[in-house]
This record gives sequence, structure tokens and C-alpha cells, in this order.
Amino acid sequence: MSEKRKIYKPKAISGFPEWLPEWRAVEQRWLDHIRATFESYGFCSIETPSVEEIDVLLAKGEVDKEIYVLERLHKEDDDSKDARLALHFDQTVPLARYVAQHFNDLTFPFKRYQMQRVWRGERPQMGRMREFTQCDIDVINVDHLPIHFDAEIPAMIYDTLDGLDIGRIQHRISNRKILIGMLNALGVSNDKDIVSITRTIDKIEKEKQTELITTLISILKSALDINADEAHKQAEFILEFAKIKAIPKDFSGLLRDFIARNDVIARSVSDAAIQTINEGIEELSFVLDYLSYLPDHAVAGDLSIVRGLDYYTGTVYETQLLDVPEFTGSVCSGGRYDDLAGSFINKHLPGVGISIGFSRLFDVLKQTGHLKPAAKGPADILMALPSEEKRSEAAATARTLRERGFKVEMYHAPQKIGKQLSYAEKKGIPFVWFPPFEDGKAHEIKDMNEGTQEQADPADWSKP
Amino acid sequence: MSEKRKIYKPKAISGFPEWLPEWRAVEQRWLDHIRATFESYGFCSIETPSVEEIDVLLAKGEVDKEIYVLERLHKEDDDSKDARLALHFDQTVPLARYVAQHFNDLTFPFKRYQMQRVWRGERPQMGRMREFTQCDIDVINVDHLPIHFDAEIPAMIYDTLDGLDIGRIQHRISNRKILIGMLNALGVSNDKDIVSITRTIDKIEKEKQTELITTLISILKSALDINADEAHKQAEFILEFAKIKAIPKDFSGLLRDFIARNDVIARSVSDAAIQTINEGIEELSFVLDYLSYLPDHAVAGDLSIVRGLDYYTGTVYETQLLDVPEFTGSVCSGGRYDDLAGSFINKHLPGVGISIGFSRLFDVLKQTGHLKPAAKGPADILMALPSEEKRSEAAATARTLRERGFKVEMYHAPQKIGKQLSYAEKKGIPFVWFPPFEDGKAHEIKDMNEGTQEQADPADWSKP
Repeated sequence: MSEKRKIYKPKAISGFPEWLPEWRAVEQRWLDHIRATFESYGFCSIETPSVEEIDVLLAKGEVDKEIYVLERLHKEDDDSKDARLALHFDQTVPLARYVAQHFNDLTFPFKRYQMQRVWRGERPQMGRMREFTQCDIDVINVDHLPIHFDAEIPAMIYDTLDGLDIGRIQHRISNRKILIGMLNALGVSNDKDIVSITRTIDKIEKEKQTELITTLISILKSALDINADEAHKQAEFILEFAKIKAIPKDFSGLLRDFIARNDVIARSVSDAAIQTINEGIEELSFVLDYLSYLPDHAVAGDLSIVRGLDYYTGTVYETQLLDVPEFTGSVCSGGRYDDLAGSFINKHLPGVGISIGFSRLFDVLKQTGHLKPAAKGPADILMALPSEEKRSEAAATARTLRERGFKVEMYHAPQKIGKQLSYAEKKGIPFVWFPPFEDGKAHEIKDMNEGTQEQADPADWSKP
Repeated sequence: MSEKRKIYKPKAISGFPEWLPEWRAVEQRWLDHIRATFESYGFCSIETPSVEEIDVLLAKGEVDKEIYVLERLHKEDDDSKDARLALHFDQTVPLARYVAQHFNDLTFPFKRYQMQRVWRGERPQMGRMREFTQCDIDVINVDHLPIHFDAEIPAMIYDTLDGLDIGRIQHRISNRKILIGMLNALGVSNDKDIVSITRTIDKIEKEKQTELITTLISILKSALDINADEAHKQAEFILEFAKIKAIPKDFSGLLRDFIARNDVIARSVSDAAIQTINEGIEELSFVLDYLSYLPDHAVAGDLSIVRGLDYYTGTVYETQLLDVPEFTGSVCSGGRYDDLAGSFINKHLPGVGISIGFSRLFDVLKQTGHLKPAAKGPADILMALPSEEKRSEAAATARTLRERGFKVEMYHAPQKIGKQLSYAEKKGIPFVWFPPFEDGKAHEIKDMNEGTQEQADPADWSKP
């Protein structure tokens, strides 16, 4: 370069990860495995645009996610006439919009998976990801969605995560009807109070018991107009209740026992509340029974799982990695919801779904040394180039091997063989193929790991 | 739903395509095939963030693409301290930034493919896509990039497009050194004049000959300070030259003959100009020879291919579909460039690459009836559910078949068999599996296309 140019030295943008090829290959292998598992259950793929109209994103009201709005760099005055567009912050709002928009063209129950990037306009200094991939599965039906799907979703996720070789996983499963019925039984029936109590329970592993009790007392006092003593007793009961965990087989009985022997709610319970609790217990039992073929560690009933969102109405899931202590919190989570797309269509569309936070999972496992990088390129074989005269024969041999299923990289110039071998080594290509150096001689193949070399005929080779 | 809610009826956003599941499956099959072909040549995958800093996107100066800038919906005052981010409008600037940023961690020649969405902030009423997928391959090397890669790239693209079953394709290939040397020989040496002439030639199939001649005369008159007669003669010569096409085998000889018998440049040609022309002819001959194993229709030397950008310095490609008249223009294009990342790193990084405009290709072929949709779901087998009691046996059979390679969707409720069969039919699932309706009876499988049904043992079945 004769000319001296101004150089803008690029650096990583905080919150927008990118990988070197040897890690990208591992990421792609993971994504392929996840996709294959989702499809092995008959779920179809959809992708939606990266953007939605802001009115769509905010159709349910203000959202607590930070949203990135798009603006054209060279705005024109009449741009303001067009709908404002923003990057989607999850795949649930786009799914709702998609199902409403294409309602007449879909087959229900609609079982779809979706693996796309989503964006959150977090401040960069927070160290959170601002662009990441989520892998979602949901089943949507019209009017009524059988409980079967609540059980099938964690079964799918077990197969999905089990195949990633990241140690044991555990689904912690509850059903919000049990908690809601219980709160109704206590006399709490206002949605706002129920949400406040659920959000408090959601912090059960993060905050101190005494702080949780204090919060609950304050909610209960104002919700039920009771004195501090009674509120304290009920708050303790709620927390004790939320700590119920058991291995699947005993869970339903254990829960019924607990309810029977607690006098806090024994007094004046409405039939509706009892029915809600029973429905919740039945649904949860169905799900836990269905999953009983899995190893013992894989599934736990756990009433502390409530999910913060008021969106969920029944089964709720969180999934943890048991052998990766560096990964805190839930690797995927979700649950049953009563109404997917009420903002967009006049249909009752219940659903159940779960979302794997793919990028954080991959990033944490990579950073903590749980993953090994792949080779720097995908080739199985490097086709050596003995001389310029042999180029077309080498290229033809490479084509034959490709037709037989191998990934074959061609060396580009007739350089010294030592240089070609060291290129294969550097890129981690396991075999080097030598076309005949002279007419009439045989092809040879070198195994780079074993160091052995033998005669070979491209017509005899095919990938297992 | 008891409550009457306000419904926001969603509609498609112009320029942001999305597909129904049966088309998304075809799109995914295409993308898988493209990826597999790229990898079969040993190219590695990279993905970059969807955004770059605006300073990176504009490092080479203003771009003629419309750029989408991101703004947080709830801006804060100190947002302005952060670098402004914008969605990438192609994959070349991100590649340049990536190679510069990770220079020390990459193996050269760096052969990468990249298949991502890109965004252009076009006005919606223009009917252009504002979000679309590009499939790019590039090879980058330090200081010197062997001509081998200029030939390998169209070979890869041939395999890629040939496998999509979209009829015959044709690579039209030229080398800009031939045109530049020729213009130098005519006395045109100013970069700006060369670019103007190249852009005029680039319109050879869109504009009338007389208009092109007029434009060329005006450029030549001012570039060379010659009279209208002379300029006219040269303009005609340039156009005649640019119209040279031939089947690969004759091309080089034909071109040399043409140069020899034209007196317009015979007078006072510099050695440097001749050398540039010869280099171009040699490089083009190498590429055409390398591709001579392809069918005759697949490759054409064609001097009218110049690419509008001044970015390209040698080989240039455009690829056309010969059997899809509805698809106008080039399905992919690219070429050799001298300096990928001079704006970001003080290294000389020549490269060669090509980009498939995936979304437009898919969209046009879909719209014009050249493609058939896939089934509405990926399942090979629907597992029927004879009764609630048989659910766990049905689920276990589904698991066995999945382990044996099948995609198995489970029917969710013990409804009438007729209903279950019609679900399979509606979703296009080719087989329905019946677990034993009573203990001791055999499994059966129904072929939905043939209408036949026979006894089956899950342990005997595995996917071919």
C-alpha cells in the first residue's frame, strides 16, 4: 500500500458477542442439535422479521424490556408517515402477531419452534447481552389446549439439553393454579395482590427469609385487612408452602397432606378455591407422571417456581444445570398461558411454551472451560497440490471425494509438501490426500493424527 | 373471553418477508444445502453481530446504501456518550472489521462463509426488501492471494445453485484488468474516468446503444481532450469490445485477435497497458480453464461484466438463471478486490468473494410457481393415541422410533381414530403408527399415501 490511510481500529461492541470460527462451529453444532431435537417431535420452524411495529410490541401495554427503535440514517420529512419499527425483544410477541395474522393458514394445535436473535437495548455498562439467540418452542391451540403438551415440552427440552453434553439437568416444575387456589383460600383474590405475592415468592432463592416475610406481611395486611399477627402466620405459611419440593412420585400426596394439616386455610375455604388447587395438583401430577421415565435427578416438583410474569396460568418450568455451578439461575423457563394473542385477534388461544436462553448458556459454558473448540475449518481432507500440472487432476479428485460425502479443501498452490502439511495441521484437518505425483503412480492418504500414510483409490472411499 | 378487548389487527410490514411453515421448511432446506456445499469446500462459518458502529460502516466514506440506526425507545441523556450503532447493510464491511479485529487469531488464507440477515432502510413504497438474507463466501490472504481462489469460488457456486433444482445457471466472468489495460491503452488513466466508463458499460443490457455511445463520447472527450469524431470511434470500439462473449475454450484467442486487428489502440500503447491486458487475459484464462469440466452452458467469458463498484480489481462474476425468465439480473455476483480492510488495519489483504442474494432468489422462485411447499410439519410418523391408558406406551414407542432416527409427532388426546388420521392428512405426515389397542396385540403402521396398513415392531424400524 503506497498511500498512508487513516485507520479506524475496530473493537468489540459490548453486549454483541461474536466468535472465532472454531467456536462458531461449536455454536452451529449446538443449534443443529437443538433444531433436530425439536423437529424429532414434529415441531415446525418459523422465523419472523427482526422488527415489529412498535404498536405491536406495545399492544399489551408498556414492557419492561429495553427496546431498540430503527431510524433511517438519512431521514426524510415524510418518514414520519410510516409505522415506527423496532427490533423484537423476545419471540413471544412476534409469535402472537404471527398466529393472529396467519390464523387461517395454520394447522392447530400449532406446534412451532423459533430460533432467532432478539435484542434488548440495555446500557452497555451493565455487561448484559444486547443481542442474543433464543430457542423457543410453543404449542398453541384454539379454545382448549390438552395437558399433554405441558408434559411434552419438558420431555423435549430434556432430550435437547441432554444431547449437548453439559452434565445433568433438572426441570423444576410447578403449577400456578395450586398457589393461586391457596391464595384464594386465604382470601387473597385481587389479581394485583396475587402478582405481588408471586413476585415475592419468585425471589425465594435470592433474598433472606426475614425480608420475604416482611414483604408478604405488608401485602397481606392491606389485601386482607388483618392484623400483624395473623398476617405473620399467613406469610410463614405461604413461604413454607412455596418450599415444598419432592421427588415426582410422592409429590401429589405430599401436597394434599400439607394442605390437610394446615389450619390457616381450613376455616372458610370456598369450593372454587379448592377446585383450583385440585386442578393444579392434577395437572402437575399428570406432567410429573408423564416424565417419570426420566432419571430421578431430571424432574422435581417445586412450588417455589412461580415465574415473575402474571402471563402464566398453569404449569410453570425452570430448568437448571446440576453440574455447572458457574451457571446461575435458569437455563430455560416457560409455562402455560391462557391467551396468546388476545391483543391481535378475537380468538381464545391458550398455549404452553418454553425458551432456552441460548447465547448466555453457550457463553457461560465457553467462558468457564466446559467446552472445547472445534477445528479452525470443517474439512475432513486437504487435497495436496503436487505441481501446477496436476491441478486439474487434484481438483477432479477433490470433486469425487466431495460426491462421496467428504468435506475437501483444496490446497491452492504447488508449494513444498511440508508447507501444505503444516497448513493442514494448523487448521486441524485430519487427513491429507496426495494425488499421484507422476502419471501411473497411486493416490496416497496421510492420517495426520496417526502419522501413517497409505495408498488409496478415491472410488473406494466414502464417508461412513 | 369475557372481557371485550381492543384488538390491533396486525399486517405484513412491507419489505420484511416472513413465510408460512410449509415455505419456511423449503427455505431452511435451501440454507442447509448452501451451508453444506460451502463446508464441503472447507470454508468455515462466521457470524457477526447485526450491528456495527456507524463509524465502522462509514469508514470508507459515505455509502449509497440506506442505513438503519438504532435508538433506545427510552433514551437517556448519557446515551449520547455511547458509540452509535446501526444494522449492517451487507456482510463485506463486517467481514473487513472482523478480519482486522481478529487478525492474529485467524488462519490465512482465510476461507469463510457467512449467511445472515442484512438490512437496508429503503422507503417502504419502493417494494424492495428491507431485511433479507445474503449467503457470502470470501477468501482473504495476506499480501498475495493465488488466482486459484478466483476459479474455486464459481466452482462452489455452481455446486450450490445446481443442487437447488432451479434449472441451468450461467456464470458470466470477466477480468477488469483487461478493460482497464485497454482503457489505459486508449490513454484513459484517471481513476475517475475509468469508473465512469465502467459504470456506463455496466448498463449495457439496460440502456440503448446510442445513449451509451453519447455518454462514452462525453467522458472520452473530456478525459482525452480529443474531438468528437475520434471520441465516437473510441466509444464504439469500447462498446464492441465489451460485447465480446465466447465459450470458454476460444475466449483468450478471440480476445487477442480482437486487440490485434483494432487500430484504435495500435498506435502508441504503453508496455504497462499491454502487461495489464495480458495479466487479465491470463487470469481469466486460468479461471475459465479451471471451470472447463462444467457443462458448456455454465460458464461464459463476457467482457460486459464489469460490476459497478470501483472496489473490484481483477476477476468479476455475475451469475444468471437460464431457465427462470422471471428472475431478472444476477442471482449472485462478486469478484476480486485488492484490499479488504485497509480502513481497519495496516495490512494488505487481497480477497475474492461472491454473494448470493438469497431472499430475492427464494422469493421470486416462490412467487413465480417454481417451488413446491413442504408439508406443514416435519414429522415422518404420527403416533396415534388409542386410549388414555395407552399414553405411556405410545410415548415410549415414540421415543424408541425417535432414537431410530424418525421424526415422531405424538397425538395429544385419545380422540376418535378418524380424527387422528385426518390430522395426519392435514399436516402431510406420511405414516401413522398405532400402538397396540389392547395388551398382547401387535403395533401397526399405516402408509397414508398408499392407504395400506400392516403389523410392525418398533425395534425393527430404522430410518434409512
